[in-house]
Amino acid sequence: MISNNNSSCSQQTKFNLVQVKGTWIRQSDQFQLAEGKLSDAKIYENKSEHGVSWTVVSPVVFTYRVIQCKNILDPTNDTLLWGHLGEEELKHTLSNCKPPKRFVVIDENVNKLYGSQVSQYFKARGVVYKILPLPTTEENKCMELVTKILEEVHEFGIDRRSEPIVAIGGGVCLDVVGLAASLYRRRTPYIRVPTTLLSYIDASVGAKTGVNFAGGKNKLGSYVPPVAAFLDCSFFQTLPPRQISNGMAEMLKELTQCCADRYGMCSSAGMALMKHRGLFELMETEGRKLLHTKLQVCKTRPEQEDSATAIIRIAIETMLEELAPNLWEDDLDRLVDFGHLISPELEMRILPALLHGEAVNIDMSFMVYVAVQKGLLTVDEKNRIIQCMLSLELPVWHQDCTLELVQKSLKERLKHSAGSLRMPLPTGLGTAEIFHGMIGDGILCQAHKKWTDELSSSGDK
Amino acid sequence: MISNNNSSCSQQTKFNLVQVKGTWIRQSDQFQLAEGKLSDAKIYENKSEHGVSWTVVSPVVFTYRVIQCKNILDPTNDTLLWGHLGEEELKHTLSNCKPPKRFVVIDENVNKLYGSQVSQYFKARGVVYKILPLPTTEENKCMELVTKILEEVHEFGIDRRSEPIVAIGGGVCLDVVGLAASLYRRRTPYIRVPTTLLSYIDASVGAKTGVNFAGGKNKLGSYVPPVAAFLDCSFFQTLPPRQISNGMAEMLKELTQCCADRYGMCSSAGMALMKHRGLFELMETEGRKLLHTKLQVCKTRPEQEDSATAIIRIAIETMLEELAPNLWEDDLDRLVDFGHLISPELEMRILPALLHGEAVNIDMSFMVYVAVQKGLLTVDEKNRIIQCMLSLELPVWHQDCTLELVQKSLKERLKHSAGSLRMPLPTGLGTAEIFHGMIGDGILCQAHKKWTDELSSSGDK
Repeated sequence: MISNNNSSCSQQTKFNLVQVKGTWIRQSDQFQLAEGKLSDAKIYENKSEHGVSWTVVSPVVFTYRVIQCKNILDPTNDTLLWGHLGEEELKHTLSNCKPPKRFVVIDENVNKLYGSQVSQYFKARGVVYKILPLPTTEENKCMELVTKILEEVHEFGIDRRSEPIVAIGGGVCLDVVGLAASLYRRRTPYIRVPTTLLSYIDASVGAKTGVNFAGGKNKLGSYVPPVAAFLDCSFFQTLPPRQISNGMAEMLKELTQCCADRYGMCSSAGMALMKHRGLFELMETEGRKLLHTKLQVCKTRPEQEDSATAIIRIAIETMLEELAPNLWEDDLDRLVDFGHLISPELEMRILPALLHGEAVNIDMSFMVYVAVQKGLLTVDEKNRIIQCMLSLELPVWHQDCTLELVQKSLKERLKHSAGSLRMPLPTGLGTAEIFHGMIGDGILCQAHKKWTDELSSSGDK
Repeated sequence: MISNNNSSCSQQTKFNLVQVKGTWIRQSDQFQLAEGKLSDAKIYENKSEHGVSWTVVSPVVFTYRVIQCKNILDPTNDTLLWGHLGEEELKHTLSNCKPPKRFVVIDENVNKLYGSQVSQYFKARGVVYKILPLPTTEENKCMELVTKILEEVHEFGIDRRSEPIVAIGGGVCLDVVGLAASLYRRRTPYIRVPTTLLSYIDASVGAKTGVNFAGGKNKLGSYVPPVAAFLDCSFFQTLPPRQISNGMAEMLKELTQCCADRYGMCSSAGMALMKHRGLFELMETEGRKLLHTKLQVCKTRPEQEDSATAIIRIAIETMLEELAPNLWEDDLDRLVDFGHLISPELEMRILPALLHGEAVNIDMSFMVYVAVQKGLLTVDEKNRIIQCMLSLELPVWHQDCTLELVQKSLKERLKHSAGSLRMPLPTGLGTAEIFHGMIGDGILCQAHKKWTDELSSSGDK
């Protein structure tokens, strides 16, 4: 007996929902009685001999802003305080005579460098504020940190509607604060201010929040986007070079990813492939310079602004394109990204030896060898890609990335992919294609051997 | 400097998102290059002298089933195992040769009564299962209970896509399991099986999950609906009468609420008011009988099935109507419901003396006196409503519901209502209307005096 299907004996009625005098009433599709605002939500009612069932279809619209700006901690810049609001909302908020309140969570290292500027900003703007510095490292990324934030937020007291929690730091800080905010009173608005290159182009623009749990990476979390992410490159000035390389690896991945996205367009659009082949070349020729100037604007050499701006913009745009239609990852296949098949296993196995972007890069480097072995990439193209990675000071090989680990990771992925592994592989300089199904052990084994033969001494340089 | 507004110097481009070869690319509204599935999500890009900003508008569609059924623990009934799936999904799932897995959290009292039947059901269906009984009381409703569930779920191991967590119990159990499931791997499907009347018509059909925190009711939680709620009245047979009354109070509220919803329709539809005036009379004449028969079908008196079924269905339909268009409570004003202005304060102050529905009923009883004082209700109508409440064995007055508490609660609400209190008041038998603005202290004071004079001895009977 299945009472919820449209079997022949059941009868389905579709109801629209109409708002009358501030409340909602359902109306059959056929009989329109009351007039009012129509909701996009629908209720389907099924009656059968076994009873009644309803199917509720309810769209929730998430709207958020991503703003690139300069001098975010300059008190004359409105962004940090009001950037999350539209013009009308801002007018409404400013008409309120109460001083605004802000609860700020900041990574403790970022606090040492920028804490006093943050304080000065809020003081200058007449804000009632509290700054909570926390050690937001991967090792501390757990529920206890979330609880600590919640206790402090609760004690400070904020208005759930109008006083967003502000997170300033790297990916761990943004993820942890996002989870705390999404839990507090079932959803309190929050703002992401990334201070690392990796979080700037990755964690800041999405909806994912999370903490590690029971030894698993991001096992607990939610999909609640910030009301706004404020992106200011000038924080990169104080990053150690390794952190810049770390972010560059994710950018390399996204460049390839975005070209994969556009692969189907090449014949119809023509332009796309060109544009992105150009981007790989930009990374190849300019990457090292960008690394050493920490993607800062060099006033005496304005052409550098263009490379940095172009590369960062493409990375952000690509992320937004992938996120917006799939904010809650209902399409789980998208989780399988270039550089993310083997790297999670590798990263967790040798934490904290490798940064996230470094593990991703090792994964990509290996996949380049797989692509050569499959005849998708020429040896010359492979050499150029590896050379580009090396110029960005990224590891291209790791002794713990054994053939056994590669095989285990791919099999693990296959288990969670409903039987069909989707594997993006590079097919040229800055292009990729998605291949379905498992790669034969022969190809994996040969690729791994060649990869080890050629690159195992790369770290010695 | 506000860089995110459409000021005269900024230029906005709207982008649609098109799926090409499994990935998403953005396309300006004006130039349609590639063909593919169009997303409802949009990206608006603003360029101005201050930089670039994007506004992401991303709808996420939540779909869930609410199924009324009988004999849910009968192994020949598919609902508990497969009721959350549509016909096509079920075919796909059954084609998988692995035995299904289910993790079940059950209230420990419910477990004493039904635990062995639940075990037998899953055994008979060849399911790999684990049953976790927990003391899901209001006092235990906290994050530790969520963590306990998460640890056990993690150890048991389930497939995030196809193996929903099942919650069997009252509102606290459903709320706590809902929160655990919404956190696990950022969202694991879960199923609600309410065993109390209150949770049947309230917690089971919505999206809200939650736990108490820092002395506040449901201060932490999320808005993630279950994949399905399975409603089986036969659990009520083993409820103590006080629990039935508790649920009846929420039904009285919802009857009034749903009539408020339809108030605007009366002139155009005519029928609605009649229908719901009839419903109040049904409660008045049949309520006591329904209470004593615990809303069960009496085979020798089939007319009782109709009263019970009618009342429960209207309550569920009303809940769904209010939920579907506002699943994430973006419209916060809807939080102000009849019977829910004073009751939260009262309930938390004297926990565990009052059940939730009892506190709601005391609130409604007082509001009936306010309505009389405002001339909205006649004395005769008031007497009939109070008499109906008493016949349902509900408290209509409480010594701790002082005038001071009433005033404090209303002021507290006003603070969170952006300056305009929305107050639903009864305007007849089974009808209500929403009034805006604060009620004068004079009316409140007189209503409270009369309420106390007339009803303070009601509990002595």
